[in-house]
Amino acid sequence: MAIKEGLRPGGRSARVQESVHSAVRELLEAHERSSVTVPMIAARAGVTPSTIYRRWGDLSVLLADVALARMRPDSEPANTGSLRGDLQAWAEQYLDEMSSEPGRNMMRDLQCTITPGYCVSILSGQLQAIVDRYPHSSPPSVDHLINLIAAPTVFRILFSNAPLTAQELHALIELALNA
Amino acid sequence: MAIKEGLRPGGRSARVQESVHSAVRELLEAHERSSVTVPMIAARAGVTPSTIYRRWGDLSVLLADVALARMRPDSEPANTGSLRGDLQAWAEQYLDEMSSEPGRNMMRDLQCTITPGYCVSILSGQLQAIVDRYPHSSPPSVDHLINLIAAPTVFRILFSNAPLTAQELHALIELALNA
Repeated sequence: MAIKEGLRPGGRSARVQESVHSAVRELLEAHERSSVTVPMIAARAGVTPSTIYRRWGDLSVLLADVALARMRPDSEPANTGSLRGDLQAWAEQYLDEMSSEPGRNMMRDLQCTITPGYCVSILSGQLQAIVDRYPHSSPPSVDHLINLIAAPTVFRILFSNAPLTAQELHALIELALNA
Repeated sequence: MAIKEGLRPGGRSARVQESVHSAVRELLEAHERSSVTVPMIAARAGVTPSTIYRRWGDLSVLLADVALARMRPDSEPANTGSLRGDLQAWAEQYLDEMSSEPGRNMMRDLQCTITPGYCVSILSGQLQAIVDRYPHSSPPSVDHLINLIAAPTVFRILFSNAPLTAQELHALIELALNA
């Protein structure tokens, strides 16, 4: 992917990126996803289509980039004062976000084009921030939390006819804490 | 989806389906997935494109139908004589099949178009067959096995940069058995 880390903030490159991302977000609100094209995005962002192709390669990479930018959390996971409480708050929000239409679209965009592992590295960062708050509780490993909480959440949304219930989610959290 | 259950075996409809499925499988072996079109499939299957559109709606539904037909297991899960052994054999095969290129493509086709839940109902049937063999072992529920074994297997393949290791898979099976 053509996401450059360490761009000079406010530089020309960052401004192009912000303008193109905004155009994509606005178009996706107003149009069917399958009808959005690179020329439409370019026109709205005030750049040429070739700028988009040069920077992102193709539409699917651009959509994945926008999806990723949305996925990056705005803030630290909620701090409720206990490991169990923090995990519950995080897992409920994750289930809620991923079950939404934008969440489902995001997963579809990400899994086709993204640098493998980038998605899990964001999740890992959030869960690591939680477990680091409770070093004396012998918290489970982040990998374990991903396998037992994030994986069933996403799997059920993508492949089953009903997402996890709150009760199932809480039972999985208990299992992760006691394992 | 236009998969009709209870078709008369060997009837005209079943012959069209078999011919179109074969054409898709052969074309996918010889060509990039993105270059396969409905007219190509129709020509190879000896039907008109409108037959395909009428029956399957569009290419993505047809690809999902072929993927599903491949996914339906040919046989009962291996019977090793113990619940643990059966689950290990099943989970290892599942991890192996889903990590393959055809397995990844299948997951992509399925999640976009399939009747929700059909995929999990196939998995459930296999796991149910296993747990039904050991009624006296108080086996875990099938939903529990899906959440703890199938979900992490698939999640890691789709979103992480490395599939589950055999060691992680076995640890998850132990957890499912002891929960």
